[in-house]
Amino acid sequence: MGRWEPNARGRLEQAALELYVERGYVQTTVAEIAARAGLTERTFFRHFADKREVLFGGAGTLRELMVGAATDAPDSAAPIDAVAAALRAAGAMFEERHDGARLRQSVIAANAELQERELIKLASLGAALAEALRGRGVGDPAAGLAAEAGIAVFRIGFEQWINGPGEPSITQVLEASLAELKAVLAGGGSGSGARRPPHGP
Amino acid sequence: MGRWEPNARGRLEQAALELYVERGYVQTTVAEIAARAGLTERTFFRHFADKREVLFGGAGTLRELMVGAATDAPDSAAPIDAVAAALRAAGAMFEERHDGARLRQSVIAANAELQERELIKLASLGAALAEALRGRGVGDPAAGLAAEAGIAVFRIGFEQWINGPGEPSITQVLEASLAELKAVLAGGGSGSGARRPPHGP
Repeated sequence: MGRWEPNARGRLEQAALELYVERGYVQTTVAEIAARAGLTERTFFRHFADKREVLFGGAGTLRELMVGAATDAPDSAAPIDAVAAALRAAGAMFEERHDGARLRQSVIAANAELQERELIKLASLGAALAEALRGRGVGDPAAGLAAEAGIAVFRIGFEQWINGPGEPSITQVLEASLAELKAVLAGGGSGSGARRPPHGP
Repeated sequence: MGRWEPNARGRLEQAALELYVERGYVQTTVAEIAARAGLTERTFFRHFADKREVLFGGAGTLRELMVGAATDAPDSAAPIDAVAAALRAAGAMFEERHDGARLRQSVIAANAELQERELIKLASLGAALAEALRGRGVGDPAAGLAAEAGIAVFRIGFEQWINGPGEPSITQVLEASLAELKAVLAGGGSGSGARRPPHGP
């Protein structure tokens, strides 16, 4: 067993993201990632199964956090409030990770296979969240709809946060995004309402 | 050019779905599909690029119908009402197609690659719907959120309709599903509300 390397996982992630952006995901090898991080390939494989897992290794943690928060929401919480708790848990995971999240997203946006993997990840997250809601006694189709609404808020809020400067925080953006979805479903939606006339009001 | 074959496309679709269910999608060949339909391979390729397109050839039509309906909704329509119009257009496309839709879904459910393709189709549909809403002057993130809400309603309503007897109609199921999503976002949701106690109320 190799010696302990301080923050090896974080260094490998950072090196991988940099190389994926610089050279492209397909072209980058594990050997190059390890070299950039000042570590060995063996150390890489102690932390990640392959170079794709550097991008998707957090999916399981995200799912656990969201499902756990929805499950642990107070008994009195309505389904959408359990979803809001899941979104806060997701937000807490990504605070302080704006730069990394932005790099990751640019890598995924450049590769069709990674985009598919991201869609599968989100679909699986939605299914897990729906199952957590059913575990709270929420019926169908409400459980599936509330979960999908949460995933929609997560996707769109996350994208907005990544494309911005990182402030307001991801937690704040997700909260605002959920409020906006509620407004849209109630027949409103900021900057919208009815169709705007071509030459302003 | 071969002679005109009455309803060749429909016969090929039916034959393909039957074979995909009986033998599996991967195992089925275009030659077998054509033979089952009593047509030639040449006729098959006049209608479909490959055997996957039998399952996804309707995606373009669905997108056009939904985008067209959202775009053509009255100027006074709120974003979610434009989405409701898109859902009605989708419903109209699938009325009378319950058996085929159910067969298709069972083929897709049995194959991971087809499931990915279906996720990509829905993501692309959501992006097109969001763009149609922006064309109506709806701002972001409302456009993206309203579109994603529409896709969530479509996915979950469609699944519910397919797993049922076909009545109520897909249009009615989608309308009820949208109403349910509105209720969920307003803090309710049928069969839900707060967590139910383990031994009933």
